[in-house]
Amino acid sequence: MGSYIWLVIGAGIAAVLYGALQSAALMGKSAGSDKMQEIAAAIQEGAQAYLRRQYTTIGIVGAVILAAVFFLIGPTAAIGFLIGAVLSGAAGFAGMLISVRANVRTAQAASESLAKGLSLAFTSGAITGLLVAGFALIGVAGYYAFLTNVRGLDPTSREVVDALVALGFGASLISIFARLGGGIFTKGADVGGDMVGKVEAGIPEDDPRNAATIADNVGDNVGDCAGMAADLFETYAVTTVATMVLAAIFFRGEAVVGNMMLLPLAICGVCILTSIVGTFGVRLGKNNNIMGALYQGLIITGVLSIGAVWWVIKTLVPAAVTVGDKTMDSNALFGCGLVGLAVTAAIVVITEYYTGTGFRPVRSIAKASVSGHGTNVIQGLAMSLEATAMPALVIIVGIIVTFKLAGLFGIAIATTTMLSLAGFIVALDAFGPVTDNAGGIAEMAGLPSEVRVSTDALDAVGNTTKAVTKGYAIGSAGLGALVLFAAYTSDLHYFSAPANSAQFPFFVGMQDVRFDLANPYVVVGLLFGGLLPFLFGGLSMTAVGRAAESVVAEVRRQFKENPGIMTYEVKPEYGRAVDILTKAAIREMIVPSLLPVASPIVLFFVIKAIAGKSDAFSALGAMLMGVIVTGLFVAISMTSGGGAWDNAKKYIEEGNYGGKGSEAHKAAVTGDTVGDPYKDTSGPAVNPMIKITNIVALLLLAVLAHGG
Amino acid sequence: MGSYIWLVIGAGIAAVLYGALQSAALMGKSAGSDKMQEIAAAIQEGAQAYLRRQYTTIGIVGAVILAAVFFLIGPTAAIGFLIGAVLSGAAGFAGMLISVRANVRTAQAASESLAKGLSLAFTSGAITGLLVAGFALIGVAGYYAFLTNVRGLDPTSREVVDALVALGFGASLISIFARLGGGIFTKGADVGGDMVGKVEAGIPEDDPRNAATIADNVGDNVGDCAGMAADLFETYAVTTVATMVLAAIFFRGEAVVGNMMLLPLAICGVCILTSIVGTFGVRLGKNNNIMGALYQGLIITGVLSIGAVWWVIKTLVPAAVTVGDKTMDSNALFGCGLVGLAVTAAIVVITEYYTGTGFRPVRSIAKASVSGHGTNVIQGLAMSLEATAMPALVIIVGIIVTFKLAGLFGIAIATTTMLSLAGFIVALDAFGPVTDNAGGIAEMAGLPSEVRVSTDALDAVGNTTKAVTKGYAIGSAGLGALVLFAAYTSDLHYFSAPANSAQFPFFVGMQDVRFDLANPYVVVGLLFGGLLPFLFGGLSMTAVGRAAESVVAEVRRQFKENPGIMTYEVKPEYGRAVDILTKAAIREMIVPSLLPVASPIVLFFVIKAIAGKSDAFSALGAMLMGVIVTGLFVAISMTSGGGAWDNAKKYIEEGNYGGKGSEAHKAAVTGDTVGDPYKDTSGPAVNPMIKITNIVALLLLAVLAHGG
Repeated sequence: MGSYIWLVIGAGIAAVLYGALQSAALMGKSAGSDKMQEIAAAIQEGAQAYLRRQYTTIGIVGAVILAAVFFLIGPTAAIGFLIGAVLSGAAGFAGMLISVRANVRTAQAASESLAKGLSLAFTSGAITGLLVAGFALIGVAGYYAFLTNVRGLDPTSREVVDALVALGFGASLISIFARLGGGIFTKGADVGGDMVGKVEAGIPEDDPRNAATIADNVGDNVGDCAGMAADLFETYAVTTVATMVLAAIFFRGEAVVGNMMLLPLAICGVCILTSIVGTFGVRLGKNNNIMGALYQGLIITGVLSIGAVWWVIKTLVPAAVTVGDKTMDSNALFGCGLVGLAVTAAIVVITEYYTGTGFRPVRSIAKASVSGHGTNVIQGLAMSLEATAMPALVIIVGIIVTFKLAGLFGIAIATTTMLSLAGFIVALDAFGPVTDNAGGIAEMAGLPSEVRVSTDALDAVGNTTKAVTKGYAIGSAGLGALVLFAAYTSDLHYFSAPANSAQFPFFVGMQDVRFDLANPYVVVGLLFGGLLPFLFGGLSMTAVGRAAESVVAEVRRQFKENPGIMTYEVKPEYGRAVDILTKAAIREMIVPSLLPVASPIVLFFVIKAIAGKSDAFSALGAMLMGVIVTGLFVAISMTSGGGAWDNAKKYIEEGNYGGKGSEAHKAAVTGDTVGDPYKDTSGPAVNPMIKITNIVALLLLAVLAHGG
Repeated sequence: MGSYIWLVIGAGIAAVLYGALQSAALMGKSAGSDKMQEIAAAIQEGAQAYLRRQYTTIGIVGAVILAAVFFLIGPTAAIGFLIGAVLSGAAGFAGMLISVRANVRTAQAASESLAKGLSLAFTSGAITGLLVAGFALIGVAGYYAFLTNVRGLDPTSREVVDALVALGFGASLISIFARLGGGIFTKGADVGGDMVGKVEAGIPEDDPRNAATIADNVGDNVGDCAGMAADLFETYAVTTVATMVLAAIFFRGEAVVGNMMLLPLAICGVCILTSIVGTFGVRLGKNNNIMGALYQGLIITGVLSIGAVWWVIKTLVPAAVTVGDKTMDSNALFGCGLVGLAVTAAIVVITEYYTGTGFRPVRSIAKASVSGHGTNVIQGLAMSLEATAMPALVIIVGIIVTFKLAGLFGIAIATTTMLSLAGFIVALDAFGPVTDNAGGIAEMAGLPSEVRVSTDALDAVGNTTKAVTKGYAIGSAGLGALVLFAAYTSDLHYFSAPANSAQFPFFVGMQDVRFDLANPYVVVGLLFGGLLPFLFGGLSMTAVGRAAESVVAEVRRQFKENPGIMTYEVKPEYGRAVDILTKAAIREMIVPSLLPVASPIVLFFVIKAIAGKSDAFSALGAMLMGVIVTGLFVAISMTSGGGAWDNAKKYIEEGNYGGKGSEAHKAAVTGDTVGDPYKDTSGPAVNPMIKITNIVALLLLAVLAHGG
């Protein structure tokens, strides 16, 4: 096992190298005219300033929690927390640094040809994607190798397990702040800018006279790019960690345990390599089918991954392994890997169906726009609700098949394999904000309208791919729910095993905690967990509304005090809008982000006071399941619905139902505005919210074990 | 016990008598001018025609299911099914018959004074409410008395239990069709009429030139009144039945069993009487505070009910009873009754906060309307999500307190006590559509604008009280979830008890079926159940959209073919709009209504084929919990959000933020339109959907027991 782990770390380094080399190549491309560079510089400046302030604020919260982890659990866990937090932040920052440089170059490339625009935008996405996966793999595998190989700790020891969980917690904590803060910023700018610009002043989207335009573009980079990157970093890291923890518990004391703990890391390692190969497969064909080009790369990655996962499993897993009363062979685990890939493929296809302009859902929203704003929104909500059914069924089938094949560990391997493609999937997503920015820069710099047609075509595909990643992230959370829950219950059983009662006195008598739905405290936990995504969604939507209002007020003030702005004589103060939003977003992100951190702790101690420890553990476990049961549906409905609304507007702008400027278009703009916070703030933030609830519960066990 | 049951039936008869006497008094009031009577006659005709066709269609489905119940379970259950179905239908029909007569009389009374308008509208609501409660109590208690006293069956025998469950199923089946069909009709008319009238043609709401106006008013009666009445009938009947089933299982073989089974009926009986008394407490004070007048009646009912429930429990329950390892005394059960009343009060207050014009949520939506359609909808959605948190916490606290006091049976008693006020709560709700209709009639008949001011004031309160009933119904479902789940698990344990293995061979070896969240099939059941409210919501919203489109097309056609309509020279063909909607609503209600009927059966047999009987029972049980966990939140968010949107519009119409005709008002109209199917179609139909899933699962057990 010793040598394989270094190969895994090597794969992570390969991903970072890919990122570095491609970045250098990207920086060599033309950044267009002086005007374009000037605009891009303003976006860069704003994005960097925002992220710096966001991370400073998160840093303060993080430092407090770091100290808590240090004192409550120990230094190894504290270092794990720090690694997770810093790398999660770094993944987001790197993503932003790339995308604020790629945007203007994409605008320039798109003015040459659609193929060049696509190639450049996708490359920048791939850099972000592979940095995210590379950082995560280096972080988890590197710290694991350090603890086991260098410090010589037993891989299944509590110190290693707690350190890995703390690493996941660090990643989750940063990612929820980054997702939410970035989401509030970007949608505050987008919604506020549209309201005061398009609706009130009657000037087009991205018009340079609107003081919120730069902020809008900044938002794409700090929200859709940096926030998304931190989120996927977290999803990747937490799932890998949870699978390792499960392996440590399931195979404790067996010879195979080292290999089984390595397995998730190795799957991620080889799939980073297949993702790199896949990125070279994205090339626009003669038919100019952008989605087809992206699919081509995804299919290459997927097919190569089948072989790679097969090789890894054959190498690391013996012919037959036994967990409890379940015996599995390596073929069964490979079957689980295939299910993970199949679930990914299914979610991609379903999301494209619900958010692509070529299918019934988006077209039905466009059609409903003809009869007005209200019917547009009704149809959008109807589709957003309906869009949850198929992904949920896919996850249900995935759970059943993998459990039949290889028990709970099989579900974990399927989830890991699903997420091992994250490098490529993030590439698909990070491509979106770059093209969105490119369109904005083209508009503001007054490039010919054909350029805008190209960037709009890229942007429409970006709406779908952005929805795909969100569906993918939340889908993996759905499939992984049982893994995280199993990590919680297995930990609880471990701490409460009679043999360990001297070591963990808090858990004496807890070995038969059950999570039976017939226990009212389990139902209480389910309902309390179920409440969180709704409340969180409500708080974050309200936050966007308030941030947008602050933008509206500022832009109105500028229009009023400087009438020269409207006649192009005076340049609006873009920086002030960025500044105001920065403050608003950071202020608004704190409370909702702390909700999932505090909730498990509060629930546990309240139920413990009322009904004792055993029911408190039951309620806490059920809460983890409750948050995923409603969170899955809330998140999918928001992200798919939002994508569908956006593309329904795009579909009308292509000339259907009266095209731009028609009454149907106005109604579609309303739907798009409603969908904005749905798909880019509240919906995606549900995913890290679910994870953080689970991770906090695991950490709570560790703290009780240490201090109880 | 023998004599008490006749007293309960007597209370039911008293409610029906109250309804009959008050109806006679109501019919004696003036129905206004010829013009008003002509309009009212058109509404009556349309409503009766629709309900007749709706019930004919439901009758066909019902006959098939009746035959299935007859052959699969037996004649006693089939008669129970028939009683539940017929009485549920009758409750809806009676509600409609009253409200189509009260509407015009309320318009006339409101033209005399606000107090008279309120008094008449509330009286008509009270008639419906007490008929609903009376019919339900007579049905359940009457059939139970017949089976046990006349036919001499053992109250805890399967024949009696199955018959009661079948009665609940009959009620549920009719109510989901009625809720959904009526909801699609009323909101198809409302949304379609607004789109083509207010938005396209620029004529005011309820303008007689709009061919959809009569259909809109018909819709209030068949949806908000008849559908709601059938729904609450079902909630009342199913909860009472579930509590009786639980008592039969918990106290089987003990001397106290008869009294304990009678307890829920007796609580309902005395609270019917307190509800009747409370109706006389609704009187408009000098301050013209409508909500205050309604509260006065509610408080009188509540306070009297405390004493009445105390008396019933002291009379029927011995000093100490033991269920399993839990000993409870009559004081503890009385405490549970108090919790039920407290939950009701809390839900009323919370709902008023989220939907009343005097508080932050509605005002924030009104304020957000100033910046446009998009921000109105965003803020409305934010509030709709947030509005779920407090009711869920109330239910959580309710579960914990009652379980601590008296175990699962305590939760059942709390739910029953909560629902025992249904007579009064339905009165609050049924008052809404009557005032809505009165406003429409006043507008169409050209009554002076002061009349409209009065009816609008009544209508605004109606929006809140309608939201209250929906929150109350779904809240009771949340509190009652454990009761229904316990009925399922207890039934399962009974059938699978080793002593019964010869009688129920299908269940051999099933006595230790568990519902542990660590079992993946339990998670599968939770997710599958969780999916249903979302899919159901999506389907029903789409159905409203399609029904509205058919109305828009018809009204447009009439405007085009008869230009005289616009100049008041030609009367539009109201009947055709009613006709088209009737067909659309009946067509659209079938598939979504059958979803919850078929789902438990499909899930059970699929999982049985994959993983065997035991996991199939686990998955089915978990599904019952999954449907409530997401259904609770979906339903509350839809009903509260819809009420808040509607009242935000009303708040603006009162002259805030620019008043009628302002841009803010237009945005608020959009929100109101979106909220319409949310609050009056999809949201409320989730409640019977949850119940029907549970009842079908119970019936499935009965069928397997008979046929297996």
